[in-house]
Amino acid sequence: MEIKVVKNILDANNRIAEENRKLFKEKNIFVINLMSSPGAGKTSFLEKIIPSLSENFRVAVIEGDIQDTYDAEKIAKLNIPVVQINTGGACHIDGNMVKEALIGLNLDEIDILILENVGNLVCPAEFNIGEDLKIMMLSVTEGDDKPMKYPLMFKVSQAMVINKIDLIDYVDFNVEKAVKDALKINPSLEIFQISCKTGKGVEDFLTWLKKFKD
Amino acid sequence: MEIKVVKNILDANNRIAEENRKLFKEKNIFVINLMSSPGAGKTSFLEKIIPSLSENFRVAVIEGDIQDTYDAEKIAKLNIPVVQINTGGACHIDGNMVKEALIGLNLDEIDILILENVGNLVCPAEFNIGEDLKIMMLSVTEGDDKPMKYPLMFKVSQAMVINKIDLIDYVDFNVEKAVKDALKINPSLEIFQISCKTGKGVEDFLTWLKKFKD
Repeated sequence: MEIKVVKNILDANNRIAEENRKLFKEKNIFVINLMSSPGAGKTSFLEKIIPSLSENFRVAVIEGDIQDTYDAEKIAKLNIPVVQINTGGACHIDGNMVKEALIGLNLDEIDILILENVGNLVCPAEFNIGEDLKIMMLSVTEGDDKPMKYPLMFKVSQAMVINKIDLIDYVDFNVEKAVKDALKINPSLEIFQISCKTGKGVEDFLTWLKKFKD
Repeated sequence: MEIKVVKNILDANNRIAEENRKLFKEKNIFVINLMSSPGAGKTSFLEKIIPSLSENFRVAVIEGDIQDTYDAEKIAKLNIPVVQINTGGACHIDGNMVKEALIGLNLDEIDILILENVGNLVCPAEFNIGEDLKIMMLSVTEGDDKPMKYPLMFKVSQAMVINKIDLIDYVDFNVEKAVKDALKINPSLEIFQISCKTGKGVEDFLTWLKKFKD
């Protein structure tokens, strides 16, 4: 019975996500859904890539958090439009939450819209929001076993960004194993190794991303 | 409507959790629900504490994972009974999954039963399983903002184990802030700072834990 409920929720979500997708297409907005475990570095990553993206594109962000506006405040300092979704306990952002959040944005003045999802390696992977790209972030401090243990996130994403590569010498993380396992789950996954601290690898990611808006 | 569904699920879960609790009491089994983000170090922690616990108690483990048996295989090497729950996609362990898992254990030969939950800082906090203690683990690599961003996990737990303290010099983690924020959410939270790598702080945790079975 529980499974049935979940399926109904997912079906209903997909309908709303498709509505969002149509609207984004109409407004020529490229939409990214950024997902990871708590603390993998999503906000730091946005702080790193948005200044560069903003040179060519009008970027806006929807911040998804259970409560409060800590991350949104950081992003607002980049002088771009930010809307906060507070899920009030829910573990993921769904299509309807994004739809509601769009009320707070001027869609005629956005080229790239980035949703920073709730920190969770499981549930966000199940909910489409009408995005063009799902990007997942894995930090080396989480361990190289994550692709095999949480496969859906790696399966549904177009890119895996391995973050905190500056800490690689201090943790037991075999990059080769993580990459191999992730590609086993999703052979077309684009993979980047970066450090938000040192900036390493960020340029490669940006080069790849910008191609979508060429 | 979605909220109603979730409430029903939680009510149904609590009924089963209470059945589990009665059974655990009858069999004199002390039950721990260990929760954290993916990769915070739950399995490493168990590998560290179980040999010491086993000197005085008969310990068994239920491993909760979305799929596969990676962690269960590690725990099995400690020569204690282990049962694997595969949630098949679900983001948390609930009372019924634990009830089913108990079929695989001889309850007359267990003093302490530890459930290692699915790696997720959100959903597991909502589901009681009939446990005596909820223990949550936070690794310093996740950031000191986690108590304020994911408050329910810190509110429902009796102890917060701050792990990977050996990496403190390489990350921006203010222990004082994390502790202060966690205590704001839950003033009676017991807090331990440990390193599963160096063993630091593990003895303090064990001293505290063993009191419950004296």
